[in-house]
Amino acid sequence: MESVYKKTGKKVVIVGGVAGGASCAARLRRLDEDAEILMVERGPYVSFANCGLPYFCGGVIEKESSLLVADEKLFREQFAINVRTLCEVVGISAAQKTVQLKNVKTGEVSTESYDKLVLSPGAAPVRPDLPGIDLPGIFRVRYVPDAREIRAWIELRKQDLSGMNSYSGYQMVKRAMRGVVIGGGFIGLEMAENLIHQGLEVTLVHKHDQVLPRLDPEMSRFVERYLEKHGVRLALNDGVAGFQKSPDGSILVITSSGKAHPADIVILAIGVRPETALAKMAGIEIGKRGGILVDEHMRTSNPDIFAVGDAVEVKDFVTGESALIALAGPANRQGRIAADVICGRDSSYRGTQGTSIIGVFGGAAAWTGTNENSLIRSGDKDFEKIYIFPNAHAGYYPDAKMVAMKVIFRKSDGRLLGAQALGLEGVDKRIDVIAMAIQMGLTVYDLEESELCYAPQFGMAKSAINFAGMVAADVLRGDMPVSHWNSGDGGYLLDVRHPQEIAVEQVPGACNIPLHELRARLGELPKDREILVFCRSGQRAYYATRILLQNGFKAKNISGGMLARSVLMKTEIVGGSLD
Amino acid sequence: MESVYKKTGKKVVIVGGVAGGASCAARLRRLDEDAEILMVERGPYVSFANCGLPYFCGGVIEKESSLLVADEKLFREQFAINVRTLCEVVGISAAQKTVQLKNVKTGEVSTESYDKLVLSPGAAPVRPDLPGIDLPGIFRVRYVPDAREIRAWIELRKQDLSGMNSYSGYQMVKRAMRGVVIGGGFIGLEMAENLIHQGLEVTLVHKHDQVLPRLDPEMSRFVERYLEKHGVRLALNDGVAGFQKSPDGSILVITSSGKAHPADIVILAIGVRPETALAKMAGIEIGKRGGILVDEHMRTSNPDIFAVGDAVEVKDFVTGESALIALAGPANRQGRIAADVICGRDSSYRGTQGTSIIGVFGGAAAWTGTNENSLIRSGDKDFEKIYIFPNAHAGYYPDAKMVAMKVIFRKSDGRLLGAQALGLEGVDKRIDVIAMAIQMGLTVYDLEESELCYAPQFGMAKSAINFAGMVAADVLRGDMPVSHWNSGDGGYLLDVRHPQEIAVEQVPGACNIPLHELRARLGELPKDREILVFCRSGQRAYYATRILLQNGFKAKNISGGMLARSVLMKTEIVGGSLD
Repeated sequence: MESVYKKTGKKVVIVGGVAGGASCAARLRRLDEDAEILMVERGPYVSFANCGLPYFCGGVIEKESSLLVADEKLFREQFAINVRTLCEVVGISAAQKTVQLKNVKTGEVSTESYDKLVLSPGAAPVRPDLPGIDLPGIFRVRYVPDAREIRAWIELRKQDLSGMNSYSGYQMVKRAMRGVVIGGGFIGLEMAENLIHQGLEVTLVHKHDQVLPRLDPEMSRFVERYLEKHGVRLALNDGVAGFQKSPDGSILVITSSGKAHPADIVILAIGVRPETALAKMAGIEIGKRGGILVDEHMRTSNPDIFAVGDAVEVKDFVTGESALIALAGPANRQGRIAADVICGRDSSYRGTQGTSIIGVFGGAAAWTGTNENSLIRSGDKDFEKIYIFPNAHAGYYPDAKMVAMKVIFRKSDGRLLGAQALGLEGVDKRIDVIAMAIQMGLTVYDLEESELCYAPQFGMAKSAINFAGMVAADVLRGDMPVSHWNSGDGGYLLDVRHPQEIAVEQVPGACNIPLHELRARLGELPKDREILVFCRSGQRAYYATRILLQNGFKAKNISGGMLARSVLMKTEIVGGSLD
Repeated sequence: MESVYKKTGKKVVIVGGVAGGASCAARLRRLDEDAEILMVERGPYVSFANCGLPYFCGGVIEKESSLLVADEKLFREQFAINVRTLCEVVGISAAQKTVQLKNVKTGEVSTESYDKLVLSPGAAPVRPDLPGIDLPGIFRVRYVPDAREIRAWIELRKQDLSGMNSYSGYQMVKRAMRGVVIGGGFIGLEMAENLIHQGLEVTLVHKHDQVLPRLDPEMSRFVERYLEKHGVRLALNDGVAGFQKSPDGSILVITSSGKAHPADIVILAIGVRPETALAKMAGIEIGKRGGILVDEHMRTSNPDIFAVGDAVEVKDFVTGESALIALAGPANRQGRIAADVICGRDSSYRGTQGTSIIGVFGGAAAWTGTNENSLIRSGDKDFEKIYIFPNAHAGYYPDAKMVAMKVIFRKSDGRLLGAQALGLEGVDKRIDVIAMAIQMGLTVYDLEESELCYAPQFGMAKSAINFAGMVAADVLRGDMPVSHWNSGDGGYLLDVRHPQEIAVEQVPGACNIPLHELRARLGELPKDREILVFCRSGQRAYYATRILLQNGFKAKNISGGMLARSVLMKTEIVGGSLD
């Protein structure tokens, strides 16, 4: 395939035509009509919606064509960009500034020179070298054809299992199809949901003790309950050891603990690893976390080679540490920045906050910034956290559901460090607002003063963000010293809930004085011990804490009350799921 | 009714027990267990959900009890606050620091002293002195009993009209009930929707030429189309002149232009006016806009009297001007600040951004900061605006709808001044993020770099916020000079849409060169004239503008393309409603 546009300016070759690569190419053209731009992509499509693949597998996105956001024709016609799909880079000579390109279909190899080279190869799904990994019926979810094959396989096996497909050679057993998803990250959870949409019985096998590792474990617990409620069988804390073929054509997924999960389809979603083969070929530096090393201008150790997207190491915006964070938004932004810099502009990348969201079964989990686990790992002790459970919209308007939020902030100055939110409604909104606040280095005091949209369908007069700011500021100002169920604070446990609530679920050893009786019954409480106060979510305990402190008691509010306890202590609780 | 709690500390009397007053009372108690707090409320309820009243009228909120967020018992038991409802302040002596309270039921008058007085009387619906204003069937929507009466009236009249109520004495005509709503603000629109929920035929009479006056008129136009689409008949630009009774028991709403709208129920929602009678009684200063004057600590001209909520004049956070902005969130915050200050804390109110949202028929309109109209009125010319129409979530995922956004920013430094958004999904989220950005004085360049939640159900990899920032920054950096349909720029009109789109709707006098042919047909364009480029929403016109500028043409993108034209020029357009 010949270049359609031979231009007079610099020649830029972009390797990888999805998020980062495609953004870079389009931006380059906008900035420089004279550049010759060649974008090569190993797969059959450029600019496809990889975040949509699980939903195509599940039939939520019906047509494959919906996944193809822009094609070669559009790049050629609108942007005068040469695109070659099914084109693999098989050699890079940084010295000669050339790449060797192989046509995947014909095997033909050609050489292209470049003035600037942009690597956007992405990250590849981890495919562990396990016994049986190549059995038919085991899939990854990376490219459009993967999803197409998954959907076809599901159709075929469904027919087998319903006895409708007499030609497949499998035994005809009328039962539901069984899927095993391996991995508890984004793709794993999305595939679990989508296999259930397809009518499968689904087991999710995950080697760690929590799903969604960027959440702190107690917040993951809400998600896990919700998944289970929607029919996903969780097999956590158990890695996969291998795969065996059953006589009936199905697969046995054997785990480290020796369990065998039968499956008619297996989805590998263990995680991704930066594609660095090309970078190594070009002799450019790889970072300590295994991604391509770039500076803030997305330039690699070779000044004529840039790299963007999931393959590069980024600076964690909050902690300043080097990190691998595979996200579409940052990839797109990095692509644009590389284009800017190639065109002589002084753009730079500020780092990645890791703002993310995942939708499952109508609910959502989202986060931004750092999490408690990371802070603990790095030895950082200058932080505090709160749990709050505000309504997503006014309680007096129908169908108000709670949002579970954890907010982490600097103890010394109130700066926001991270937030996690879960719920059925408005989760994205809360995290987006906090993401913007973290971007600007704001504090919990700024959240107190925020003025956000309120109408009964959309929020509360005191928004969840105000509420988070107020609770955190109360902690920092000393108005409400805070404790946590798992912080090891010894103390006198005071439950200020109503006896009716306690009849349903109680905390062993806790004394009960309902809030409305507290002022009259202060004499029953010890003055020499720290009183740890709790209620259902923390609101009444806050009022109680204020009463106690002003009456000369030592008191702390156990943040998030019974709702936080249920996940921190892994107790069950009425209403303690996402919904 | 005697005080239940006689405390040893200062005595605070709070007048008004809804948003600002109730927040102030609760915060006072949290800060000071010794204060004696008396909260009096003229109506029958404290802390009721006034923003829910229209939805109670429409039956969306079924039970009246849902509207009662907190009652006297809760205030007494949880907060040791004395509450008197149906209690009117009939006298204030600032010199003696006393208030005279009248029991509305018994007529009994008593005197209470105060150390600090907090006024939170709210704003009253305007009730113009028009002929027939007292006819039965004409209602305002302020208190719970108003909504109760509206619902009862609707039930009764529905029965009349269906011939089921033989005792009412009205003629038995089987037809739909007709409602006329007067006023195009929040309450007016919400009532129009809710009357339609109740099965009424609804006409909305409004004296101005646009609904929702805090939107700029072209953005209101989207809302107006959407209202009409959902069955609301709009009678704009026509004030109400009076009311007449018809023989069949219905009301004729006579307008300034001489029209007569028949109605079985009339809702007065013309606007609100700060309740300043008490303030005047106390001899404290009133501002030039007619609200109670307060400093940043919510203190009036009398150091022992504070005022909060809809009755006070606030500082517009963006423009610094004095303003009347009746919103629940700011009222609550002001209440807490007054309590802080009374308790010796150094809290202050930063001003009101006016962040607002209204839901209608499943859609929403929201805004924050200032609008173009206000800037023009104040003679401010250092601003630019853009219109964008991003998808609320990824286009490849089902049911993606566009959000219409207008963003206004400083030409000189990029500072965000205001934003307006409309659509069926995610409108609150976009405005909340921009509200947070405006709070911190951010610029459009900061929006470019924001990192927000992305999964196909919730947003786009390049979020609407990024998009707004990028488009605005393109304008400020000179990469994309911008024009507007109504800016009077004379120029050569270039339509870069596809001929298929032009077949559906065209702009008289515009030359058509589809984007994908532009590079080959540059010779057809004039070099000596400014070329004003447009497409459907502005995206392709941006690409075209870049091509033109780099090829030595003078070019500007007409912001928002055909979609903006439809509202700015009041043309009709396919797909030009909110949905």
